Amino acid sequence: MIRIGITHGDINGTGYEIILKAFESEELLSLCTPVIYGSPKAAIFHRKTLESQTNFIVRNSINEVRDQNVNMINCFGEEELKIEFGSKSEANQAIAKRSLDQALADLRAGNIDALVVLPCTIEGCHSQFGYISQQYNNATALPLLVSDNLCVASATNFIPVAGIPRKITTQLLTDRLASLRSTLQRDFSIESPRIAVLSLNPVDSSGVFAGSEEADVIQPLVQQLFDKGSLCFGPYTSDRIFGQREFEHFDAILAMYSDQASTSFHTLTQGEGHRFLSGLPHVITSPIHDAQLEIAGKDSASPQSFLNALYSAIDCVRRRRQFDSARSNPLQKQFYDRRDDSDKLRLDQVSNDDEPEVSLV
Amino acid sequence: MIRIGITHGDINGTGYEIILKAFESEELLSLCTPVIYGSPKAAIFHRKTLESQTNFIVRNSINEVRDQNVNMINCFGEEELKIEFGSKSEANQAIAKRSLDQALADLRAGNIDALVVLPCTIEGCHSQFGYISQQYNNATALPLLVSDNLCVASATNFIPVAGIPRKITTQLLTDRLASLRSTLQRDFSIESPRIAVLSLNPVDSSGVFAGSEEADVIQPLVQQLFDKGSLCFGPYTSDRIFGQREFEHFDAILAMYSDQASTSFHTLTQGEGHRFLSGLPHVITSPIHDAQLEIAGKDSASPQSFLNALYSAIDCVRRRRQFDSARSNPLQKQFYDRRDDSDKLRLDQVSNDDEPEVSLV
Repeated sequence: MIRIGITHGDINGTGYEIILKAFESEELLSLCTPVIYGSPKAAIFHRKTLESQTNFIVRNSINEVRDQNVNMINCFGEEELKIEFGSKSEANQAIAKRSLDQALADLRAGNIDALVVLPCTIEGCHSQFGYISQQYNNATALPLLVSDNLCVASATNFIPVAGIPRKITTQLLTDRLASLRSTLQRDFSIESPRIAVLSLNPVDSSGVFAGSEEADVIQPLVQQLFDKGSLCFGPYTSDRIFGQREFEHFDAILAMYSDQASTSFHTLTQGEGHRFLSGLPHVITSPIHDAQLEIAGKDSASPQSFLNALYSAIDCVRRRRQFDSARSNPLQKQFYDRRDDSDKLRLDQVSNDDEPEVSLV
Repeated sequence: MIRIGITHGDINGTGYEIILKAFESEELLSLCTPVIYGSPKAAIFHRKTLESQTNFIVRNSINEVRDQNVNMINCFGEEELKIEFGSKSEANQAIAKRSLDQALADLRAGNIDALVVLPCTIEGCHSQFGYISQQYNNATALPLLVSDNLCVASATNFIPVAGIPRKITTQLLTDRLASLRSTLQRDFSIESPRIAVLSLNPVDSSGVFAGSEEADVIQPLVQQLFDKGSLCFGPYTSDRIFGQREFEHFDAILAMYSDQASTSFHTLTQGEGHRFLSGLPHVITSPIHDAQLEIAGKDSASPQSFLNALYSAIDCVRRRRQFDSARSNPLQKQFYDRRDDSDKLRLDQVSNDDEPEVSLV
């Protein structure tokens, strides 16, 4: 059974409410074994407030976890955590971080198969995905915004607008597109993903871009990748891709900066979808919303985005297994003699080519 | 009767199709007197292709224009214009410009009350609104994107992303907000418009902006304007305003750059709405779409956005007249003595204050 770790996020927010609601029905337990990294006391407090009937079983470590149960690993011992619904608290950032750290340790040790991160601010990081990427010491981590018919990534992350243009280099875009293509193939089972690359600058009515980055960097790279067989297209304006719904023709969109990706995504999806941290050795997802302090404790939070993140994590673990097993023991390349009209299979000669069959860009 | 000038735009596009469809019913003629600046020969070619029944009457100059008719001023004499549906043509840029120039001349001479500009590229300008602003030699012209429940302007226009941050100055934003406030009051009859100002940079989950422009420029200015009585709010991220539909609480949104304004607008409205060139002495609007070369001559263009632009121009002319007449002969300010408990009206003393009653910021 696939084991999915779940962090509790900001305990003043809707994290526990969403978890309790999601596991109200036991059907989910036939898809995965949930392992919540949290505080049983905090969970019980939320459970009482919401008059929830969801049961969970407290475990002291990952070794005690059992299938068919909602497992909760106690990351806080007998410690009392102060819960004030909806109030911003720096202490809760540290409390969320302890849950996240312990879950990450189990994820990296292979004790759980994937992680769903519930929302909280982690001090000193612009987001939990930023913190996790740091922990993996991994520049290739690429956060995605994913909904039913839209998948958006951004070439640059949380940086000032003033710093964006000089970040848009051939190297960065090459890396991002390779990472995006790789995750679409391995995690989303799209063999030949079609990727639309957005422009950085606006375009005028005759098709001329206001800046030089398109002609200097984006256009030549897209052409080069396309010539090599990657289905990369662009640069397109965000106006065209989102405003005229042309995103429907593509498997993913690479935006140039985070606002270009996220504003259109949220405008189109209005609270649906989930976040996906691609490019790491492990599967990590998150709901689309924040800690929802404004509705905490009011029994009005929807578990839908959390469920999407959970399903996505389960799907991705399965797809990665399939992808890897299908490629773990490939037939060796065999050679034909074409010296005369009849092709002859030369079984005595094999390829020394160590490259994988499906090249990632 | 309000006289509305209409340019013909790109004659290879859907301009004439939209005009012919819009004036199919004669009801519009009770709202305004249309004056099309175009080529009767080109119009007849489109009319035949579309098998349209709309009639128009050719005039040689504005002096011959009559109410209750669809008037067309012949800007091209006996000249034959070559029409190839859907084909890009530089000659047509010049042909569109002649229509626009003659319409602008009549607008500035007071012969028509407002102008609806049909789409075309004008060479050397990123847009026709850009060209018109140049003609007015007027830095305060502010293009708006307007739909039923959304009005968006941008502080900067068609410039490279690299140049945006240094353009975001207190002076620029003050000018733009004053212009926006003024047009909302005079052209849209909103006495105290609520304006949301967007941030330039993304924000992290704890509310910290990635760049310094918010703290240095935007926030202090918004606070200062609010303290002076303008209902300015922000800076808000575009994510929040558009992704969480918070724009519904505001009469207008001031974005920092054109893509921030237009992508979200088009994503939300999907082809509805119209363009409005505010800040000029005359009323100028335009449909939201481009010349639609890809569907030209196919009888599939919708006149809806053109009609929105036309209605908006009519409304705006009326509102400006109302606004100006209500303020043309104001009662003079009168003074009360408050030296004792009873207020005394001092009819012998009047204000020397020449400022208008409603200050524009």
